[in-house]
Amino acid sequence: MANVTVLGAGAWGTAFGQVLADAGNNVMMWAIEPEIVKAIQTEHRNPVRLPSVDKLPDNMTATGDRAEAVKDADLVVVAIAAQHAREALVEFKDLIDETTLVASLMKGIERTTGKRMDEVVCEALDLPSNRFLAISGPNLSKQVAAREPAATVVGCTTIANAYTVAKLCTTDYFKAFVSPDVVGLELCGSLKNVVALAVGMAHGAGYGENTAAMIETRGLAELKAVGEAAGAEPKTFDGLAGVGDLIATCGSPLSRNYTFGANLGKGMSVEEATKVSNGVAEGVATASAVVELGKKYHVQTPLADAMSRVIADGISCKQMLQEMFPAGVTEE
Amino acid sequence: MANVTVLGAGAWGTAFGQVLADAGNNVMMWAIEPEIVKAIQTEHRNPVRLPSVDKLPDNMTATGDRAEAVKDADLVVVAIAAQHAREALVEFKDLIDETTLVASLMKGIERTTGKRMDEVVCEALDLPSNRFLAISGPNLSKQVAAREPAATVVGCTTIANAYTVAKLCTTDYFKAFVSPDVVGLELCGSLKNVVALAVGMAHGAGYGENTAAMIETRGLAELKAVGEAAGAEPKTFDGLAGVGDLIATCGSPLSRNYTFGANLGKGMSVEEATKVSNGVAEGVATASAVVELGKKYHVQTPLADAMSRVIADGISCKQMLQEMFPAGVTEE
Repeated sequence: MANVTVLGAGAWGTAFGQVLADAGNNVMMWAIEPEIVKAIQTEHRNPVRLPSVDKLPDNMTATGDRAEAVKDADLVVVAIAAQHAREALVEFKDLIDETTLVASLMKGIERTTGKRMDEVVCEALDLPSNRFLAISGPNLSKQVAAREPAATVVGCTTIANAYTVAKLCTTDYFKAFVSPDVVGLELCGSLKNVVALAVGMAHGAGYGENTAAMIETRGLAELKAVGEAAGAEPKTFDGLAGVGDLIATCGSPLSRNYTFGANLGKGMSVEEATKVSNGVAEGVATASAVVELGKKYHVQTPLADAMSRVIADGISCKQMLQEMFPAGVTEE
Repeated sequence: MANVTVLGAGAWGTAFGQVLADAGNNVMMWAIEPEIVKAIQTEHRNPVRLPSVDKLPDNMTATGDRAEAVKDADLVVVAIAAQHAREALVEFKDLIDETTLVASLMKGIERTTGKRMDEVVCEALDLPSNRFLAISGPNLSKQVAAREPAATVVGCTTIANAYTVAKLCTTDYFKAFVSPDVVGLELCGSLKNVVALAVGMAHGAGYGENTAAMIETRGLAELKAVGEAAGAEPKTFDGLAGVGDLIATCGSPLSRNYTFGANLGKGMSVEEATKVSNGVAEGVATASAVVELGKKYHVQTPLADAMSRVIADGISCKQMLQEMFPAGVTEE
């Protein structure tokens, strides 16, 4: 098949590397941590980030050397923490061949610039947008690593490139669809974290599926409205990367934003929750980003507004719900 | 506020009766079971169907007498098992005043006729359609009974009547939206049970949120396509009664269709699962109904087709997923 390099050996990068290897590609993992490189090279394991996998495929190896990592790569997959992507990628700028495709597994908005990951990657690597691919869907790492059935969406403005990459990551348990809507996929992946925070908060406050479902329904409508105003296709939000990822993220206590929200719902302050979680959740910054997008495009964002009030003023879950769903009967 | 009668004292009828009572209405429950009538009258409890509630509100009482039940009612709420609704309602035909509004909490398709509950209720009571209201949303009975925050949609072809009923069932924990799309609400409520069967099956086979999310995403698209062809508004499927109820139903092991599917996923036959569940799940018959609707309107129904194969031919969960998501890369 192809030579594929994955930059970053976190849980998702490693699990997706296994998908690529299972699909028959030669997979090279690059990681900055020498102990992870060594463990993959010598034990075929990533005990630090993906301990649930006993043995990674034989056609998957690792290096800590940037030039060696991307030499001969047909496809480079970026799986670096969103807020560190730019600085990490700049080091690869002159090493990646000018025919190589570059896909991103990252979900988030760069806090310092407010930019999407497609923008960050293309700027950092000086990459033309038709060589960039967004990969987004309901893909909890541990479940993909366990080879449970899952599906994702591969997006590229040049649809032929999306087909090429989708075929490279198709296995009997992992299905890839294609889409031309890179902006939509990027926005789905980052904006849903605000909804996950709110749903986590409701569960932390002791509420069940009814409350979660009303928040997710409202959240989906809000994401779709903001996304459409920002240039995304509304139907992307109805698909795997939209409603699909929202369902998986909000339904799993494995998700970082959900857990962070749950701690807020139990009565912790943002500071306390940040301490317990070893860092602030992505959705906290994204809440402000959504509010800003709403103002810019004149779209109402009651969920992000209410979540911002939780973060800024520490309002309770009950109060959050009242602000999100004001009194009075209206059409849905 | 108003005099409201609830026909049927199952879990949802009783929980919704409590919502109506909390909203300040005088609530009369009618039940065919003398022991339930007596328990509500004398102990303010429904230990048979809703044992989780210790004490129902004081302004909620019960009778076993049909004429007494609906005399002076401004609103009659029907909460009878879908397959028994017609025969039970015929007995009330000449007792209900001709200005009384009639709302249905029932979700399902009448097996003997293939008709929706709005059609069944209007036929059985000889009711003009503008006096009929559909109430549908992510409303798991026990959570509503525990007064957790929840929302629903009240639909009527005459929107003023929907506003009237929505106001009657609004409390500080229960929010009602209105909609003119009765057909959409009815289809959402019944068709989602097929998706719940499939998701339950995936969980029973040991798969997690990724697999559930891909099935729910596919299911939502299928329901929306069938619904639109059958005359529903697509946006109803994006709302609380559509994606909202789908999320709640598929996310809760409390749901009957989910549990039935889970038993199939564990390897039981339909006969064995029926035995264990004390009867067949609604979604089993609905799967064939969706296939028929798809044929009638020339809409593809891969999920309902695959689920029908599970029911008819006992194919495995893996096989079901392969039939639902055929090999090959396509646009989403």
